[in-house]
Amino acid sequence: MPFSTDGYRWTPEEGLKTGVPTDAVIVPQSLNIDADTVYDAIVVGAGYAGLRATRDLSLQGHKVLILEGRDRIGGRTCSVKADGYVYEAGGTWVHRNQALVWSEIVRYGFENRLKDSQEFYEGSRCPTAIRNDAVHEVPWTDQTSATGFAKFCNIDGQMGNSVFGLHQPADWLRHEDFIKWDSMSCQDRLDQIKEDLSAEEIEGIIHLLLALSKGPLTRPSYGEVLRWVALSGGNLASMGEHTARWKLADGQTALALAMFDDALKTGNLAYSFSSNVSSVTTEGHITTVTTTAGQSFKTSSVVVAAPLNCLADIQFSPALDQTKAEAIAQGHTNHAYKVCVEAKGKQWRNWMGNAYPHKGVPFLNGDGINPSGNSYLISTPGNYIDPQNEMDKLLEGLQYLHPELEVLRIFGMDYHSHPLSKGGWAVHGPGYVTKYLESLQAPAGNVYFASADWADVWRGFIDGALESGAKAAWSAHKQLRNASS
Amino acid sequence: MPFSTDGYRWTPEEGLKTGVPTDAVIVPQSLNIDADTVYDAIVVGAGYAGLRATRDLSLQGHKVLILEGRDRIGGRTCSVKADGYVYEAGGTWVHRNQALVWSEIVRYGFENRLKDSQEFYEGSRCPTAIRNDAVHEVPWTDQTSATGFAKFCNIDGQMGNSVFGLHQPADWLRHEDFIKWDSMSCQDRLDQIKEDLSAEEIEGIIHLLLALSKGPLTRPSYGEVLRWVALSGGNLASMGEHTARWKLADGQTALALAMFDDALKTGNLAYSFSSNVSSVTTEGHITTVTTTAGQSFKTSSVVVAAPLNCLADIQFSPALDQTKAEAIAQGHTNHAYKVCVEAKGKQWRNWMGNAYPHKGVPFLNGDGINPSGNSYLISTPGNYIDPQNEMDKLLEGLQYLHPELEVLRIFGMDYHSHPLSKGGWAVHGPGYVTKYLESLQAPAGNVYFASADWADVWRGFIDGALESGAKAAWSAHKQLRNASS
Repeated sequence: MPFSTDGYRWTPEEGLKTGVPTDAVIVPQSLNIDADTVYDAIVVGAGYAGLRATRDLSLQGHKVLILEGRDRIGGRTCSVKADGYVYEAGGTWVHRNQALVWSEIVRYGFENRLKDSQEFYEGSRCPTAIRNDAVHEVPWTDQTSATGFAKFCNIDGQMGNSVFGLHQPADWLRHEDFIKWDSMSCQDRLDQIKEDLSAEEIEGIIHLLLALSKGPLTRPSYGEVLRWVALSGGNLASMGEHTARWKLADGQTALALAMFDDALKTGNLAYSFSSNVSSVTTEGHITTVTTTAGQSFKTSSVVVAAPLNCLADIQFSPALDQTKAEAIAQGHTNHAYKVCVEAKGKQWRNWMGNAYPHKGVPFLNGDGINPSGNSYLISTPGNYIDPQNEMDKLLEGLQYLHPELEVLRIFGMDYHSHPLSKGGWAVHGPGYVTKYLESLQAPAGNVYFASADWADVWRGFIDGALESGAKAAWSAHKQLRNASS
Repeated sequence: MPFSTDGYRWTPEEGLKTGVPTDAVIVPQSLNIDADTVYDAIVVGAGYAGLRATRDLSLQGHKVLILEGRDRIGGRTCSVKADGYVYEAGGTWVHRNQALVWSEIVRYGFENRLKDSQEFYEGSRCPTAIRNDAVHEVPWTDQTSATGFAKFCNIDGQMGNSVFGLHQPADWLRHEDFIKWDSMSCQDRLDQIKEDLSAEEIEGIIHLLLALSKGPLTRPSYGEVLRWVALSGGNLASMGEHTARWKLADGQTALALAMFDDALKTGNLAYSFSSNVSSVTTEGHITTVTTTAGQSFKTSSVVVAAPLNCLADIQFSPALDQTKAEAIAQGHTNHAYKVCVEAKGKQWRNWMGNAYPHKGVPFLNGDGINPSGNSYLISTPGNYIDPQNEMDKLLEGLQYLHPELEVLRIFGMDYHSHPLSKGGWAVHGPGYVTKYLESLQAPAGNVYFASADWADVWRGFIDGALESGAKAAWSAHKQLRNASS
């Protein structure tokens, strides 16, 4: 099993070490790269958006070069494998109503290789809503979370469906109600309805929104949260079903590798990992893409499949238009880390703990049992804590959730503090997508932009990355085809 | 605009004529066919299953030959175009929760080119449930349809979701509850609960099931109807949203053509339309596919993408295994035709008429307004009437629905009576999928089978055709790749 230099692992015996074991590391790190070739397309980034663009373009017969700053594929997804067990140190869940990712799952034959994060264990089922097993200052129940969240979402009597029930994504952005909802923060919405909420319902809403967005409720757009809810079926239970239940038994990295291998086997793919792009310079029909190490490559088209919060680190020439530059400067607001915990014993499988952010670790969810008979639990702390640099604080936070929790091992990825992600899944601030989404999606000449962070439908999800990658690839393909005909 | 010899058109002035204007006709009818070439894959059938297999395989660099019996692509979908307006003379609706078709829509840039079959018109909205505007012996309202249908579906307190909420399609087939539900006909289920239903609710259920299945309630499997409902969100309104609301503004043929053109532009595609396959004979590693006209072609793999009810017309050597042969002999039970009606005036846009099957035309739904300001309505009569051969009966049936309906034009496709479909979308009988689905999906050596009729998830839908085609292509691709490595 190769080791990525990304992320970290921790055990009581060995303490903190850099890197995790994962199949996502590509060996050798570069293949067929040539500074004299004019590639048909250079894809910057090998997360799902970049992999989809790469796969589609190389299958179309175009010569593609991937440049990826990390030593691995997958971007904000990464399956750690240890003792034959998968720890998802990044994006995890899929659903058949997420069209783009489900299509890849079907294409590569994973549709009967799923695991249920909420499966039965010794007869008891983990509810999709928050449970009251942890240390709280104010207790609440599943039911109050659900009723409170329903009130929070039901601004139009249809849980947002008066907008998101319309099938054309372009209709959402233009809809006067969405523009209004998007202009509000989640705090604005909470303030609007708090008289109708019990103290427990308010606690429930705050915790759910923290889990979704990783920061104070003033940060996330209310319209964006409504979009998630509406796409997920309009209630808390269906949201759990759509966004936190079904995972790949073989791990996200297996799916990402299937796409990478598919591209590789065309013979049209060159790649260089651990190659971070610093500039994209277009002169006439040729674009030069240069890495921080000073290597330069030429191409007829570029797909920039880097996270929103990293685009400012790439110098574009000609400069990007002002709206796009503003959008990039502002970025998104999700400062998530991902932490995978192995805790002694099976008893944590269906346990869910929650604590307020000032306690360090806002939540911890049981997600499986590993072959050693220990529980696998996950957490996504926001930037209240930086696990890799504050391991003591992380361990203290975990212990605070339940004093009997015996942590045997931790794997983690530092998405927020990592220079190649600078954040978790995109959570946009009030007014952001209304103002910037179309601009982020627009190409700049022969430079196309692909990321879950500005996808149309499942924005912020693996599905959105694939959607955006598919569109960028098709646009680049049409340009290349037209140029050659 | 080319004319297909498929289907028919009718006007009061010119009467009945064979053929319809559609872009689905491929000109020239054959390209690059060569009896001496050993193709990598021959795809039998150019409906969506065949097109997906063709697209994927040709993009993978395999030499593909399509043999299609009709003069057009699309199979049981076909967009008729007249005076700039699209009449969908076949499968029509899509939804973003239908993963495979939504992915194609996104890939080819149609996601903001949708039309709403239930859109507002002069302030009134066509409800998703049956309306009471037509000639009925027993009246009912939307609400009774919805309540009756809810009782009909709610066998497990979760609208079937105790089975279909499980994400792995393989889990459905093995689930003891599904086996029980699939063993029942819809009539069995109705008999089970009829004491709890009002007469109006029973009428509503019968009409809905007739619209879904085109025949007496003894024919369709109850488990199969439950699958539709559960996938569609578990109630009548969401079922209308998922299966009868969103259509492509450019027509299904535009999407099918995008896939066909994508394959064609690889340079790997040969095709012969109006070439009906009569036999598939494998000897060693080579399969010979022969048409009814006596042309033979050689290949390393075959994707048979023909409808279930037509498989008996292809002679396979070696013979298919007994279970598959039994499944083919039994076939599916949906005897649908598709009729598109232009009626004078806008007033029928949101109108829905229903009559019992013995009146000839069980329903007629307004679906749009054409550029001449007339209403576009659709119907899918079952085999109570054969429109092309019984035009008087069809016109009489339409008139019976509403005496003021002035029919200006009809376009139709005779899916039930056509030798290359022999039915509409698949509606399987009691016990059928439990017994035969896995066998229908299994390859026979290097011969793969692809059709919506035996898809896993959206069986009977365009999405299912694409799912099945994707899987067959991937299987054939792996075989071809392994053979060449």
